[in-house]
Amino acid sequence: MKKILLIILDGLGDRPSDELNGRTPLEAAIKKNLNYLAKHGMVGLLDPIAPGIRPGSDTAHLSILGYDPFSVYTGRGPFEALGLGMDLKPGDIAFRGNFATVNDNMVVIDRRAGRIETGQKELAESLNMEIDGVEIFVKEGVEHRVGVVFRGENLSPYVSDVDPHSENVKVHEAKPLKEEARKTADIVNKFVKKSYEILNKHPVNRKRMEEGKSPANVVLLRGAGIVPSLENFGKRYGLKAGCIVGVPLISGICKLAGIETIKVPGATGTVNTNMENKVKYAIESLKNYDFILMNIKATDIAGHDGKPLLKKEIIEREDKAFEPLLKIIDDTLIMITGDHSTPCSVKDHTGDPLPLLLVTKGIRSDGIEEWNETSARNGSLRIMGKDVMNVLMNYSDRAEKFGA
Amino acid sequence: MKKILLIILDGLGDRPSDELNGRTPLEAAIKKNLNYLAKHGMVGLLDPIAPGIRPGSDTAHLSILGYDPFSVYTGRGPFEALGLGMDLKPGDIAFRGNFATVNDNMVVIDRRAGRIETGQKELAESLNMEIDGVEIFVKEGVEHRVGVVFRGENLSPYVSDVDPHSENVKVHEAKPLKEEARKTADIVNKFVKKSYEILNKHPVNRKRMEEGKSPANVVLLRGAGIVPSLENFGKRYGLKAGCIVGVPLISGICKLAGIETIKVPGATGTVNTNMENKVKYAIESLKNYDFILMNIKATDIAGHDGKPLLKKEIIEREDKAFEPLLKIIDDTLIMITGDHSTPCSVKDHTGDPLPLLLVTKGIRSDGIEEWNETSARNGSLRIMGKDVMNVLMNYSDRAEKFGA
Repeated sequence: MKKILLIILDGLGDRPSDELNGRTPLEAAIKKNLNYLAKHGMVGLLDPIAPGIRPGSDTAHLSILGYDPFSVYTGRGPFEALGLGMDLKPGDIAFRGNFATVNDNMVVIDRRAGRIETGQKELAESLNMEIDGVEIFVKEGVEHRVGVVFRGENLSPYVSDVDPHSENVKVHEAKPLKEEARKTADIVNKFVKKSYEILNKHPVNRKRMEEGKSPANVVLLRGAGIVPSLENFGKRYGLKAGCIVGVPLISGICKLAGIETIKVPGATGTVNTNMENKVKYAIESLKNYDFILMNIKATDIAGHDGKPLLKKEIIEREDKAFEPLLKIIDDTLIMITGDHSTPCSVKDHTGDPLPLLLVTKGIRSDGIEEWNETSARNGSLRIMGKDVMNVLMNYSDRAEKFGA
Repeated sequence: MKKILLIILDGLGDRPSDELNGRTPLEAAIKKNLNYLAKHGMVGLLDPIAPGIRPGSDTAHLSILGYDPFSVYTGRGPFEALGLGMDLKPGDIAFRGNFATVNDNMVVIDRRAGRIETGQKELAESLNMEIDGVEIFVKEGVEHRVGVVFRGENLSPYVSDVDPHSENVKVHEAKPLKEEARKTADIVNKFVKKSYEILNKHPVNRKRMEEGKSPANVVLLRGAGIVPSLENFGKRYGLKAGCIVGVPLISGICKLAGIETIKVPGATGTVNTNMENKVKYAIESLKNYDFILMNIKATDIAGHDGKPLLKKEIIEREDKAFEPLLKIIDDTLIMITGDHSTPCSVKDHTGDPLPLLLVTKGIRSDGIEEWNETSARNGSLRIMGKDVMNVLMNYSDRAEKFGA
């Protein structure tokens, strides 16, 4: 049985760029280590969810880890809260929220509280409370965005949005969409009222008003969802599993799946992340773990920013950082791919398939010399996210035989 | 409409072998007929169940014949009994069993009766009986292993194991796991008691005890399963279907599917099987049948034994035996593939995809000159087991149009 290292280069896939003479960043990048690994193993294309489906990082990682996103992805609320690094438990109800500005009659004046940029942390902290035995946690995000989580008994995600989604109208009252959600709707309404009482007199807002800015004096909730209970990943596959992931959204999903986060100094989830350290810790961790998921976010950021040259450079830095991997392929099955394409020309995720490589000693070799989006289609593997774990279990000699 | 010949080279797929200079047996084999057939048709890769899933021969054949193994594979009991050549009917309850040694208090002394090697046939025959209107059939397998089949009314597979799975503990009492299984559990317990009464004084065991060996004086049952009712293959596809198969497990599945077994002199299911006769009978049978499934087991045996040179030689013998196939491709659609990979380096089944070729007059040609695991990926076909019958129906001009 071999150890398994699954490396996700976030947003890896791309489309041709004029700035790279019609090549993708991966095609343009000089990458001797990735090419070495590809040449000595199998390559192919991956559809993280299904052909043409535009994945989020969350749904893609769920799919790749063997969870059907169509059944476990319970809406934006829970996954945005995970993305903010909130500590969620199965059964929690999570909402997307906005700091907004209302007048005395609860009429919305500014849905984004002037795109508030400072003081959100203090505002959010002032809103952690308990209502009717339900604990409520609030965490600030970028600008006006917040995550709100309810934890308690007999809660339900079937409540209507408080956020009216437009201005100069009154804040909506949350209504139960199913009978079981009466209590939750009631607590939502109490929380919104309370948020106004607390925020309207909060020092951060007094200062904003003095400066002529819109006060962030209410929290509007929308997108309620229940935090899913994911089958324990380690138990399902019989693996001691860890992850090296800088992005809260992905480490949050790993936590729900029972995959331990391994902390790496200098791993930031930005373009300046310390890739060498990530690789070093991954190799070291494989001594104690059977399975390591490593996500490197930098490629995705370059894609979102529409910077093909930067994305090419990041791939070249990743390639250099991967040099130590060449020494572990005797005992380790390594898969390198992405969670979705983030073409620089689109600046967002697309459903284009991703190149994939799979290497270990003794595996068939497709003999592909240069690994990229176009050459990968000449390989043996043409799989979907849901196949990834089965393929990894098979080539690490860990799969149970189905039948005799 | 053309006749269909589906040839399964059991365990065909492999991985590179040092003994073959880093090639697979199929890559290393000289095979002018297989290459001729591949060159004049389409090639590709097959995942018998799904990418990465490690198939048994049973689940793979079910899948390739168009049955979903996840719904019709009802556990080891029925399929092991088929593998012993037992004559099963849908609704029968089949168990895996062990000859074991117990003392007077039914405490298990040896779960395998000293891995008994002679006399099992006589012992098994002494246990065919009827209890409360239920017919019970017992058939010996390798060493201590037996198949036990219950046939009668109101039987259920939901009974707990009698086999305690360890020694120095009493034989367990079978318990109904659902109310409907009360009668079955009762008969299991009566059968186990009776097996002790019969076997403990059986001449084979008296002799064993005289020789100081553990008597095989009880049968322990486990892994109850109900024999599935497979939709009739011939009716589903409108084909008069026959099979040329040496392995009891596969011919048993064919029988459940209503596919007639065609007996071939010299076809043994071993490495010494008479391949020329199999091919001759297949061609002859295609005069009266629309569809022939031919399974040649020898490649799988070489894989399980870890002998790449032998596997290469077997493929070369198969290739020679296939020479007459070149004369029937005008009127016959021929598919040649395997049911799973059995890499010599693993000595067991793996989920690696299999090369496949599909040929008849008038079909597109992928023009692949040399047919093997790595070249096959350059062909047109990338299919799963569940697609095989649809593909065969299509290229034999037998498929019904779905829609207008």
